Amino acid sequence: MTDAAAPNAAAGHGVDAGLLRPASASPMVAALTGDGAVLAAILAVEAGWAAALEQAGLAPAGSAAVVASAAEPGRYKAADIAVRAQGGGNPVIPLLADLRRHVAALDTANIGAVKAVHTSLTSQDVLDTALMLLARNSVAALLADVKGTTAALAALAGQHADTLCVGRSLTQHSLPYTFGLRAAQWFHGLAAAGRQLAAVEFPVQFGGAAGTLAAGTVLTAGSAATPFSLADALAAQLGLAPAAAPWHTSRLPITSIGNAAAAVLDAFGKIAADVLFLSRPEVAEVAEPRAAGRGVSSAMPQKQNPVLSVLVRSTALQAPNLAAQLHLAAATFNDERPDGAWHTEWPALQQLLALALGAAGNIRELAEGLQVHPDAMRRNLDLAGPLLLAEGVSAAVAPLLPELDGRSGKQQLQDVVDQTLQAQPSEQPSAYRKLLRDAVPAGLLTDLRLEELLDPASYLGQSREISRRILAAYPDFASPDLPASATDANGAHRG
Amino acid sequence: MTDAAAPNAAAGHGVDAGLLRPASASPMVAALTGDGAVLAAILAVEAGWAAALEQAGLAPAGSAAVVASAAEPGRYKAADIAVRAQGGGNPVIPLLADLRRHVAALDTANIGAVKAVHTSLTSQDVLDTALMLLARNSVAALLADVKGTTAALAALAGQHADTLCVGRSLTQHSLPYTFGLRAAQWFHGLAAAGRQLAAVEFPVQFGGAAGTLAAGTVLTAGSAATPFSLADALAAQLGLAPAAAPWHTSRLPITSIGNAAAAVLDAFGKIAADVLFLSRPEVAEVAEPRAAGRGVSSAMPQKQNPVLSVLVRSTALQAPNLAAQLHLAAATFNDERPDGAWHTEWPALQQLLALALGAAGNIRELAEGLQVHPDAMRRNLDLAGPLLLAEGVSAAVAPLLPELDGRSGKQQLQDVVDQTLQAQPSEQPSAYRKLLRDAVPAGLLTDLRLEELLDPASYLGQSREISRRILAAYPDFASPDLPASATDANGAHRG
Amino acid sequence: MTDAAAPNAAAGHGVDAGLLRPASASPMVAALTGDGAVLAAILAVEAGWAAALEQAGLAPAGSAAVVASAAEPGRYKAADIAVRAQGGGNPVIPLLADLRRHVAALDTANIGAVKAVHTSLTSQDVLDTALMLLARNSVAALLADVKGTTAALAALAGQHADTLCVGRSLTQHSLPYTFGLRAAQWFHGLAAAGRQLAAVEFPVQFGGAAGTLAAGTVLTAGSAATPFSLADALAAQLGLAPAAAPWHTSRLPITSIGNAAAAVLDAFGKIAADVLFLSRPEVAEVAEPRAAGRGVSSAMPQKQNPVLSVLVRSTALQAPNLAAQLHLAAATFNDERPDGAWHTEWPALQQLLALALGAAGNIRELAEGLQVHPDAMRRNLDLAGPLLLAEGVSAAVAPLLPELDGRSGKQQLQDVVDQTLQAQPSEQPSAYRKLLRDAVPAGLLTDLRLEELLDPASYLGQSREISRRILAAYPDFASPDLPASATDANGAHRG
Amino acid sequence: MTDAAAPNAAAGHGVDAGLLRPASASPMVAALTGDGAVLAAILAVEAGWAAALEQAGLAPAGSAAVVASAAEPGRYKAADIAVRAQGGGNPVIPLLADLRRHVAALDTANIGAVKAVHTSLTSQDVLDTALMLLARNSVAALLADVKGTTAALAALAGQHADTLCVGRSLTQHSLPYTFGLRAAQWFHGLAAAGRQLAAVEFPVQFGGAAGTLAAGTVLTAGSAATPFSLADALAAQLGLAPAAAPWHTSRLPITSIGNAAAAVLDAFGKIAADVLFLSRPEVAEVAEPRAAGRGVSSAMPQKQNPVLSVLVRSTALQAPNLAAQLHLAAATFNDERPDGAWHTEWPALQQLLALALGAAGNIRELAEGLQVHPDAMRRNLDLAGPLLLAEGVSAAVAPLLPELDGRSGKQQLQDVVDQTLQAQPSEQPSAYRKLLRDAVPAGLLTDLRLEELLDPASYLGQSREISRRILAAYPDFASPDLPASATDANGAHRG
Repeated sequence: MTDAAAPNAAAGHGVDAGLLRPASASPMVAALTGDGAVLAAILAVEAGWAAALEQAGLAPAGSAAVVASAAEPGRYKAADIAVRAQGGGNPVIPLLADLRRHVAALDTANIGAVKAVHTSLTSQDVLDTALMLLARNSVAALLADVKGTTAALAALAGQHADTLCVGRSLTQHSLPYTFGLRAAQWFHGLAAAGRQLAAVEFPVQFGGAAGTLAAGTVLTAGSAATPFSLADALAAQLGLAPAAAPWHTSRLPITSIGNAAAAVLDAFGKIAADVLFLSRPEVAEVAEPRAAGRGVSSAMPQKQNPVLSVLVRSTALQAPNLAAQLHLAAATFNDERPDGAWHTEWPALQQLLALALGAAGNIRELAEGLQVHPDAMRRNLDLAGPLLLAEGVSAAVAPLLPELDGRSGKQQLQDVVDQTLQAQPSEQPSAYRKLLRDAVPAGLLTDLRLEELLDPASYLGQSREISRRILAAYPDFASPDLPASATDANGAHRG
Repeated sequence: MTDAAAPNAAAGHGVDAGLLRPASASPMVAALTGDGAVLAAILAVEAGWAAALEQAGLAPAGSAAVVASAAEPGRYKAADIAVRAQGGGNPVIPLLADLRRHVAALDTANIGAVKAVHTSLTSQDVLDTALMLLARNSVAALLADVKGTTAALAALAGQHADTLCVGRSLTQHSLPYTFGLRAAQWFHGLAAAGRQLAAVEFPVQFGGAAGTLAAGTVLTAGSAATPFSLADALAAQLGLAPAAAPWHTSRLPITSIGNAAAAVLDAFGKIAADVLFLSRPEVAEVAEPRAAGRGVSSAMPQKQNPVLSVLVRSTALQAPNLAAQLHLAAATFNDERPDGAWHTEWPALQQLLALALGAAGNIRELAEGLQVHPDAMRRNLDLAGPLLLAEGVSAAVAPLLPELDGRSGKQQLQDVVDQTLQAQPSEQPSAYRKLLRDAVPAGLLTDLRLEELLDPASYLGQSREISRRILAAYPDFASPDLPASATDANGAHRG
Repeated sequence: MTDAAAPNAAAGHGVDAGLLRPASASPMVAALTGDGAVLAAILAVEAGWAAALEQAGLAPAGSAAVVASAAEPGRYKAADIAVRAQGGGNPVIPLLADLRRHVAALDTANIGAVKAVHTSLTSQDVLDTALMLLARNSVAALLADVKGTTAALAALAGQHADTLCVGRSLTQHSLPYTFGLRAAQWFHGLAAAGRQLAAVEFPVQFGGAAGTLAAGTVLTAGSAATPFSLADALAAQLGLAPAAAPWHTSRLPITSIGNAAAAVLDAFGKIAADVLFLSRPEVAEVAEPRAAGRGVSSAMPQKQNPVLSVLVRSTALQAPNLAAQLHLAAATFNDERPDGAWHTEWPALQQLLALALGAAGNIRELAEGLQVHPDAMRRNLDLAGPLLLAEGVSAAVAPLLPELDGRSGKQQLQDVVDQTLQAQPSEQPSAYRKLLRDAVPAGLLTDLRLEELLDPASYLGQSREISRRILAAYPDFASPDLPASATDANGAHRG
Repeated sequence: MTDAAAPNAAAGHGVDAGLLRPASASPMVAALTGDGAVLAAILAVEAGWAAALEQAGLAPAGSAAVVASAAEPGRYKAADIAVRAQGGGNPVIPLLADLRRHVAALDTANIGAVKAVHTSLTSQDVLDTALMLLARNSVAALLADVKGTTAALAALAGQHADTLCVGRSLTQHSLPYTFGLRAAQWFHGLAAAGRQLAAVEFPVQFGGAAGTLAAGTVLTAGSAATPFSLADALAAQLGLAPAAAPWHTSRLPITSIGNAAAAVLDAFGKIAADVLFLSRPEVAEVAEPRAAGRGVSSAMPQKQNPVLSVLVRSTALQAPNLAAQLHLAAATFNDERPDGAWHTEWPALQQLLALALGAAGNIRELAEGLQVHPDAMRRNLDLAGPLLLAEGVSAAVAPLLPELDGRSGKQQLQDVVDQTLQAQPSEQPSAYRKLLRDAVPAGLLTDLRLEELLDPASYLGQSREISRRILAAYPDFASPDLPASATDANGAHRG
């Protein structure tokens, strides 16, 4: 090992500053999902609990304020707690030691505020609830960017309702299409996923050491409170959903977040895949919005890479396995608290939220600034010439044709196509026109009507109506009346 | 290669008869998810479409009946179609050729029934809709077994509300627990997943070659029908949900089925993991229901394996990756029809449904026949002796103790625990009792009260109330008033 | 449910005939990996064991022949055994019952041939060894197609060593490239994976019920044989590798097959991804070989889909999760035989081999028949014009330029690029030429030399030498001297 | 959102300090795989390249020293570079800007040292090579801990060669076993994976912008060097393997690292699964080594959790999907550099190495300090009583028995077992003994010999020889002659 390559703990670089995760390396994503946010969420749960206890008369008056002060995240060192978390296998244990120390120090009136800390809770209560809080905050921000994106896509759908392009399947040209419908379908996928995301619930967790609320029962004995009322109070404190019962071994709340985030990233990935293809030099139908310093290469001075889409695609390729990791945890969640599965949820959930948030910022910027090139779309549409209309011609003309030598009208028209395909590609457009004209007597079909049939714009089916229906199905995602994207909060991750 | 090991195509064994999939190798699962069912579903879609066309006056009168007859699955050879599917990359294309041939042969009145076949549809319309049909049927059967299972679990929760056992976390004993609460939490996970499953929608797909409904528009021109009314009619025919618009590139309907099936399998897996541990000889708290020939070993004559749980666990370990495969397809679904991703959905969905159905039959039988051994539960609960109550003792006694040598009551009680743990394990129960008695003056705590505190039955917290709340939250899953499990239809997969 | 959609068990269609797996739906793949092959492999292991016992004098003389006859796969019904496998959780148990019955019936001389059946084996010995046999046969066939493919790619690399095209990164044009180098790099990935595949070992498994060889020790007591010599004899019978010790709980032999198969599919997937792009109408640099009935659409008469690549891509997208499933099994392989993990290996391994074999047939046909269009490659290369040479110009010219207004030669040339990019795309070629000429005094660089620098053919670096080195590194994969692809055996899966 | 839960960017906590990854949250793991290590590796590549250029006379004399000084990691801020990496999509681009600035500042002699920076490289060259360097360092450390672990396991295998325990399959008792053999099989799995890990190669990457070495060819024109000799020099500088050709699109070097790391984690996971079960209170056959503060609970004062195994298990459950992510990248690595797939490799590789290193430290400590309880093993072995010997009894006695009422000796003994199983479990031992004695005439089998047959120690088969063979097969993993585990370097991650 050369010196320069030697492990470099002394340089003090964070374990993971996002160097290898450019898709989610933004201050906003870090603020919502980084370890600082985890720490803050854990502390918020402990502080919320102290408040709930004091309100119920189960902790000394004034203790909640002391705990709240002691729970200021700035007092804690995430990296140090992380290392100490190895002992008990979770970060709540060392953090609690620190919290109790700070509470004791701040309890200058000696009211016994430490009694409000963690009483009758277990680590899993705190960590599960904290992750719900983290997820709730992240999902709210994610949903805002999803809606910003869908609003931009809805606008594209409207602006380009008549912009002709070509539809593609299995890489080949299929039929005339519109860019508006493509944008509407991008909207479709994302709005449907967004609606699912918006329906996710974030329940509070309180079960105590084994999920029986035993310590909580002792604690509340003789008071007006019950363990259930305390849990409800904590949920209210934190803005989480109440829970009818502990869900410590039933991980649907966790997998549901994973599923919903993955579905949003699926929709992002589909858009990115299309944009990456459509912005290739040979296609050139769209281009990513430019920004200073974006898309540059370390070697090629003339290059402009579609970096937003590349990064979004990279996140979409990672999300399925992270969602699967959450299911695997749920499927192997043995005992009243498992022997490893629970621990695997934490980084998977954290990463999935970070990827989704990072991608959301990128895709929103992409959607809001996408450059659309109708000329290139038309040029590509015309590559195959009138042959692309063969399905429509068949549908319209076959019924007109009498049987000929035992071959139906549909078969006669397939013969025309087959003969055309034997010509050189560059000759096929004129060959098709000529062979078709020969095959269909002018008496049955005028030249004018034939040309009409060969006009891509005449064979768009329900493109406009489909777009309209899609947008109408998700009114809350289509409206331009959304929080501006230029606010500080959102701006942060696109700075 | 020895002769005996030589590839053996001539033996005529099916490609996959389930030999390596015992968890789902039942006739009922095969009937719902096997290739026969796929074939039947594809044919049902084509027949339903013919009916929709005829109803709308867009196909010759009488043609739907001809198509329906031609679409009888018995006329088709799945294996042959499978091989021919390589050419176009999907099974609809060769199947259509056969279907048209059969329709022509059956169209003895020469009404042109073939015009009702597939007109204005594309392969993806048929396959997506067929898979929705397959999934709808499978999910209905799955839900029945889920409810059968939850009903059995609810009964166990009731019967064993007072059956003491020990709670476990990270493999170690944590607190007294009840087997009723454990059953209630199994119910919790499964009922929550079942509710999600019951909410899954199965929309019809109709978009035509590029998703514009272009051919459908030509077809319906001049009629009272529209492509949308045809799609609605098809949905009604098949009992599927209508779709506001084609969803050919927005795969949330597919991933949602995957998510829901995976969540059900997660809940199954959690139960199986617990049963597998609890039925170990060293633990012996439960045993699987016996059945002739089940659980036997090829080598060990005395062995009785918990095969139901083993098979269920094997399915739960497979589901996460299959659900992930569906997300990956959605995330890379490029163009108006993709270049590979669509094809990856088919086996993943088929397998996931088969695994879920197979596991459901096993878990239902397990839940309905689980043998519960309260004596063993009590024996295991008593392993740690009164030390298991240390949390409760601390909660109840610490407030009574005055500070001693600067140590709080809580700390004094921790000292008692620490001293106890230095004794031999077999001595710890008596040591704890003695040390505790020494540490707490009888004036503060009578012997009687102390013994009460050391009785596990006194420290069950809200076990009964938690169970009650869980069952109350899912009334449609808790009721015993369910289709009997002994009906032919359900019995088939447990025969 | 409409009648037509009803589950259709009666139709007698196999559980899985490959209807939804067109990529691997070939008779050859079925023969190597289908349940018939599994059955044959299991029977081959039992027959091989009987032979080993008889040879060692541990079974009656003549018994091996009886067992071999009884073990003819045609005597067994895979579907029936599959259903009965549910009882014990694996197919060996019911198959053994049938085998013993057949042996008894065939043992007309009453020599006690049944004593040679399975004696001192356990189910896992048989199934693990059988899967090794199945994998060995499959991998041999796979390797043949890999080598057929690499030979074709090597030929393309040679033929197109000077065929200019454009290199692409992050979807954008980077530098001049050759199609020969692209083919060489396809070769590179596949040959490297093929070499890894060729190194995979397939060890025999023999451990007995708990892995102690206890029954085998009793069996061989007093004979010249040992359990180890019996295992070696079985390995020799089957053409498998001997094993120093039972590996029943150490699953590296299984995961290694999965890793190697996945690596091969990775290499296939890379090629397919490139071909899919390069054969798009807008690019048109290559085309798949045509074959009757291939690439047709159910709706669009003119369409020609790159079905080989589509199917290959679909397999490559599925392989990673299947390989992961094998690792997950290994990672949770508890006890001396696990409670579910082992069962998850079987379908994953079977599918992975089937996908690899199916894809191999397709990719080989693709490589052997790929149509290459140098004109289109040149047209696409010229899209960016001389700007594509900016890196090379900078490297060659910057050292010649004196500093100007404090800007280095390199910076001056970057200024030229930046100015060029402000022109319309169609103007950029001429703009770059002019600006460059203006920036570099003719005294420092002649017009002739400038034109040379702007010729893509002048900036191919080591393309030829890199190709040569790659081919030289894998001589056994580059040689055209391979089994012809037109043999019956191989032809089967491309029929 | 309450204030306390608000995102907390200002608190300055690192994005990911490992708070939710206790399994790998150690300074040693951070030093080897954290972003500081990534940064150091990238800088080492750039410095190594400068040295290679200067050595070849292609950069000004003295420039390598300037670059080396500028490349000290302490000069760089990982978090800042991470955010700026979004622009170009990779961290090399912003880091290069900083590096060039530092070189310029340090080039006080104005020798033009900046010309030695990155000349003719591309980002992928640097990042691929840097990740190889990171992996090489991580794998070396991993291998040391693997060997420390296998040495400890080998010692256990030796010490407990005669320690009787029970073998288990599908959760049930199968046959007598020894703890020594179990340890030997743990060794087996880990040594085999370790050998594979030790064989992984870490090749240098150098291809230039498109993989043609075009810029490198211009650079070396007229010199004695070639692009290939420069690549070799860089490899030598960094201690990496030379590469015959660029492998920028052939990702086997990446997936091979992933496969090998996953295989090691599989072996860890198998051990952890067993230890977790064996250390349960009901089983109590082993216990984890104790350490101050380890295994504590936040709620239960008496609890001692097997945290090492829990953490190891959590890593083993995560590894398969990470290895799969690398395969997915390889399988979709389109063009000469892909549009997203490459980016997905980075975090997957980084995490996989971190998990493996973290787990290795834990498992080594576990193996070196495992407490073994032969008494409990014997108690559990005796649970089933002599019935556990039924296989051996049958093997030894059946041949002695004459046929009786048409039933073979083997069948008669199965009858004995079946009758025994109808007794109460507690009665079965004596019932079996009695029924067996009744069924076998004393003339055929003495009481003494019968008791011998019912002694578990008499039915251990080849346990000792299997262990010996396993250890002999991996001599380099079995030797105790290893670097002590108490060195600073290794101690760091267990501190």
